[in-house]
Amino acid sequence: MLHIVEALSHNTIGQMAVMVGVIGLVIALAVYTRITFFSTGTAKMKEISDKIHSGAMAFLKAEYARVFVFVLIVAGLLHYGLGQDYAISFGFGAVCSALAGFIGMKAATKGNVRTTAAAKDHGKAAALRVSFLSGGVMGLSVASLGLLGLGILYGCYGQSVETVHVILGFSMGASSIALFSRVGGGIYTKAADVGADLVGKVEAGIPEDDPRNPGVIADNVGDNVGDVAGMGADIFESNVGAIIAAITLAATMSIDTIAQYFGSSDQRLVLMGLPLALSMVGFAASVIGVLGMKWFSKLKPVKALEVSDILTYVLFIGGSACLISSLNLGWNPFYALLSGSLAGWLIGKVTFYYTSSKPVYKIAHASKTGPATNVIAGLAVGMESAAIPLLLIAAAIFASFNFGGLYGIALAAVGMLSTVGQTMTVDACGPVADNAGGIAEMAALPKKVRDVTDELDALGNTTAATGKGFAIGSAALTALSLFVAYRQAIEYTIGTNFVIDVTNPEVIIGLFLGAMGVMLAAAMTMNSVGKAAGAMVAEIRRQFKEIKGLLKGEKGVEPDTERCVAISTKAALNEMILPGLIAIFLPVAVGYGLGAAALGGLLAGSLVTGVVLALFMANAGGAWDNAKKFIEAGHIKGEKKGSHSHSAAVIGDTVGDPFKDTTGPAMNILVKVMAIVSLMIVPLITK
Amino acid sequence: MLHIVEALSHNTIGQMAVMVGVIGLVIALAVYTRITFFSTGTAKMKEISDKIHSGAMAFLKAEYARVFVFVLIVAGLLHYGLGQDYAISFGFGAVCSALAGFIGMKAATKGNVRTTAAAKDHGKAAALRVSFLSGGVMGLSVASLGLLGLGILYGCYGQSVETVHVILGFSMGASSIALFSRVGGGIYTKAADVGADLVGKVEAGIPEDDPRNPGVIADNVGDNVGDVAGMGADIFESNVGAIIAAITLAATMSIDTIAQYFGSSDQRLVLMGLPLALSMVGFAASVIGVLGMKWFSKLKPVKALEVSDILTYVLFIGGSACLISSLNLGWNPFYALLSGSLAGWLIGKVTFYYTSSKPVYKIAHASKTGPATNVIAGLAVGMESAAIPLLLIAAAIFASFNFGGLYGIALAAVGMLSTVGQTMTVDACGPVADNAGGIAEMAALPKKVRDVTDELDALGNTTAATGKGFAIGSAALTALSLFVAYRQAIEYTIGTNFVIDVTNPEVIIGLFLGAMGVMLAAAMTMNSVGKAAGAMVAEIRRQFKEIKGLLKGEKGVEPDTERCVAISTKAALNEMILPGLIAIFLPVAVGYGLGAAALGGLLAGSLVTGVVLALFMANAGGAWDNAKKFIEAGHIKGEKKGSHSHSAAVIGDTVGDPFKDTTGPAMNILVKVMAIVSLMIVPLITK
Repeated sequence: MLHIVEALSHNTIGQMAVMVGVIGLVIALAVYTRITFFSTGTAKMKEISDKIHSGAMAFLKAEYARVFVFVLIVAGLLHYGLGQDYAISFGFGAVCSALAGFIGMKAATKGNVRTTAAAKDHGKAAALRVSFLSGGVMGLSVASLGLLGLGILYGCYGQSVETVHVILGFSMGASSIALFSRVGGGIYTKAADVGADLVGKVEAGIPEDDPRNPGVIADNVGDNVGDVAGMGADIFESNVGAIIAAITLAATMSIDTIAQYFGSSDQRLVLMGLPLALSMVGFAASVIGVLGMKWFSKLKPVKALEVSDILTYVLFIGGSACLISSLNLGWNPFYALLSGSLAGWLIGKVTFYYTSSKPVYKIAHASKTGPATNVIAGLAVGMESAAIPLLLIAAAIFASFNFGGLYGIALAAVGMLSTVGQTMTVDACGPVADNAGGIAEMAALPKKVRDVTDELDALGNTTAATGKGFAIGSAALTALSLFVAYRQAIEYTIGTNFVIDVTNPEVIIGLFLGAMGVMLAAAMTMNSVGKAAGAMVAEIRRQFKEIKGLLKGEKGVEPDTERCVAISTKAALNEMILPGLIAIFLPVAVGYGLGAAALGGLLAGSLVTGVVLALFMANAGGAWDNAKKFIEAGHIKGEKKGSHSHSAAVIGDTVGDPFKDTTGPAMNILVKVMAIVSLMIVPLITK
Repeated sequence: MLHIVEALSHNTIGQMAVMVGVIGLVIALAVYTRITFFSTGTAKMKEISDKIHSGAMAFLKAEYARVFVFVLIVAGLLHYGLGQDYAISFGFGAVCSALAGFIGMKAATKGNVRTTAAAKDHGKAAALRVSFLSGGVMGLSVASLGLLGLGILYGCYGQSVETVHVILGFSMGASSIALFSRVGGGIYTKAADVGADLVGKVEAGIPEDDPRNPGVIADNVGDNVGDVAGMGADIFESNVGAIIAAITLAATMSIDTIAQYFGSSDQRLVLMGLPLALSMVGFAASVIGVLGMKWFSKLKPVKALEVSDILTYVLFIGGSACLISSLNLGWNPFYALLSGSLAGWLIGKVTFYYTSSKPVYKIAHASKTGPATNVIAGLAVGMESAAIPLLLIAAAIFASFNFGGLYGIALAAVGMLSTVGQTMTVDACGPVADNAGGIAEMAALPKKVRDVTDELDALGNTTAATGKGFAIGSAALTALSLFVAYRQAIEYTIGTNFVIDVTNPEVIIGLFLGAMGVMLAAAMTMNSVGKAAGAMVAEIRRQFKEIKGLLKGEKGVEPDTERCVAISTKAALNEMILPGLIAIFLPVAVGYGLGAAALGGLLAGSLVTGVVLALFMANAGGAWDNAKKFIEAGHIKGEKKGSHSHSAAVIGDTVGDPFKDTTGPAMNILVKVMAIVSLMIVPLITK
């Protein structure tokens, strides 16, 4: 018992995290190597997948090149304002996040064609396994790089309350990459998707992923840069953000508070080490869940994912209980943790309900009176769907605060996020399956292959919806933890009580400005998708018109897919800048211009409106998507693919695309970035 | 000089308000009588207008009958919880608001056919004058009844800080009526409008207001119950809410604060009387602006309204400056007032820009690639349009607080609302002109008549958009004033400092619950419109199918318009209940269950999300509407009425209908009702 406590209170915990992180990366590498041994199928399949791979990698490189400039500038500013250590910590966070995105994309774009081949040669179970392992590389990398990076920094700065603030730089670095990856990836994927669908499916009446469609490669690249790299960076940053918020809160909370919730007042170092330790427990559980798929994949896909999920969760909860019980802190930290992971799980269930059950039927039904009523119904479902998750977040705050004060709230976030290795794996295997289906269609493989990939893709859509709910819930709790850490850091710095009274006019102004920032960023990202999709539509129409024989499918006539890839890439890179700058510079401007209280108001305003928008948009988008599929599956009497109702549902689905994959997810990051930036600049604005 | 100060500090100000209110009502009655003398045109016109009149009155009666039960119950609860005075004050507020709605509707439904007749017989200037006078009855009644009611209550309770809290009941009574009028009226009008358009314009291809369409009477009734009665109740309640918040803040602010902002510490009674006095100045200015239309109506309609507007505004500002300069308070109150009215004016301008300028062109342009891109563009415009008004509200808060503390913020709201007699007149003449056009179409009058009413209608659409921006801005400042009054009332009651710290978990929970309430109410109202419109579509389709010769326009074949009126009425009455209950009981539940701090959080959360949604929805709706008209007017090359782009724009416009006329406006009231209810129950939750 004693040496666990010892380990947590000393550098050992940092070293252990580094060790676990390295082991994790080795496992991820092994899994990646294993994937490359699977067959890539026919030459045509290989050719298509190479195009997707090189498009995705080219985008990532171009994106990182731009972001690198931004990281350099911000690192310079941090160096100037807060000192060298912050700049290094920041850069390190950016590098780790970018690396996780790079590895995950690499694996996903290798895994897609191998999933198709496995479906062709060996059937469903094999295809599931390949796609799951491809997602697993991302999942394990995200978790390992988090542990590795935080372990190193904790070893350097974690032992003193004075220096622990430096670690925040890591989170801010991760946020910056996440911000651009999410926004850029989101714009990329939806510009391509909306553009390809509008001309291909709606105007020309050819199926999705038809090889004649010039936008189809860009669309498949988009799945990778949006749903793999973007989502990965988002979750990476929530994970490290939650851990760092918990560490900061443990470092700055008063001795009385420690004694009140955790028995005795000399537990500070243990409490600081606990989040990292929990994260390691979650990591171990995730590895078992991911690698166990070797056996589960014989079950039905839906069951297999469920078993892997539940196993991971049970192992994590059991392991955490053992760990916490050995630390002499009482059971309070465990309950706080539990309330967070329970809320996360329930939010996933609510999301699942709103994007697959009665509300979807309602939208499908409303399609009978045309696109307008379909859109109205979808918007109403989205708004309604925000209510219960907001209640659940409120309940998690209530419970976790009760069990561990402000630190308890951060532990709840850690509880949601510790099994990130597993969660991220499940999330990432969706786009891999989606791509696999696209490759099957483009390579004109037999229907039975497409049936397998379709089943996996449908499963992927469901897990994506649940994953989005989870991403929002965890982002909300992480942002909130950073927010309360913000106040505590101010009090620690100025040495007296600091109040952010919400009826104080400065705070109210901040509240309105926070909402303003959120609405502006939302408008910009929606606009970007609209604009870029418009450009894509024009290009695809041009090709259909000018390239003779293309639409008729004449032999040897091929679309110019690279031009479409270039359009998406350019749009994403240009349009991601402005929303990114808002997220980073609005808090700085308000902090310097109006003071720390107004900045607190800004955080509250952006948090509440950002979370509301994220929930509304993600769920409305998911519900629209499935309402369309519901009609296609013949569940609405007298209506089928191509009917009047179906066209209405396709329009709703298209409106939902930027909702669920661009603007909604961008809100997650926005609230986190604003919170981490504010927390970083506390020493500057309280001078 | 001295006797003005004397008057403000004594009962005299209450008596004066009563007197001015009575004079105002007499003028309104005279104007109403004048209107009835105008010609009603042909027998057919009279018949149509009688149908609209009786439909509107029947709805209002049914609505008031239901609301009466609600008012009785709440009055009983207030009697039980806070005493008889509160119950009476509440009931009185409800009666005054209902009376204003009744008088306004009566005048509007008399004025519509007379506007058509004036257009037919005497041309544009005469038609403008009749419609403006009809709106004027509403405007003058709203202002007069506010003064009358508040004057009586101020006379009874305003002289002592202990009893002034009772006056809040008046505001809550007004809120309750406003809540149901806005929500019920909003659902009514859009169910009818969406339903009639979807079958009439889109499916059957017959023009708007075509007499063959069975939904057309319901649609015209809807304009009255939504845009006249609903809007009137909304503004009535903002006006009395702002005045009462200012009185309450003056009554409970500390002596030091008074001395700090207003020179000497013995000014409390003068400050309490000032809002009523300003309201009288605004009223006098409005009467001149409204009656002056007799001369202005010779100008071009757009100019005429502008002159009337500017005249009123200049008179009010000048009068206020004279009044305030005579009170020995310094110029601070004047600047606070000015910052509010300036912000209100600018918000109107911004709304005008977003609903009539470049953004509209962008939406119209996006229609070329179909309904999906039209909807995406509209949503983006709506989101963006919220940014600058939020900034302006923040600026108004900053300035007015600077000049008068929390009381200054309430004075800013009073400044926005004092010329309510004029503002409301302009707002109400829009739906009168709209109805006038409908009657011209249904009575098959010559095109030149329709041209005149169309011009007035277009003008009405513009003033409606500006009016909506104004309604939101004033609702935000009023709710905010009530919110800060809430905290000050708590401090006054408990006798010590009370903090609503936004990082306190209870407050955060309140924040999320406030956002939840807003999203739920928004979802419900959107859903209600969707459902009711669906029922309307089914009924209209049935009539077109079953009533032989109806669509062909055979002589003697008439649609069953009463059934459509009944559908709208029933839907509105049933569906208004639940959102109404949320607004009233959520604050009570949070206040009792989680305490005063959490309730403060709830108010902040509902305020910020409610205002954001209101701006987003109202402006998106207005922009969609005008994008459609923009295409109809031939401003997009190669596109016109009936083209591919136009159909897309009609779909966007239909989505925007519940946005701008149901859910968006409902948000205004929601935030005000929550604030006033919270302020009312302060004595109960601080016990």
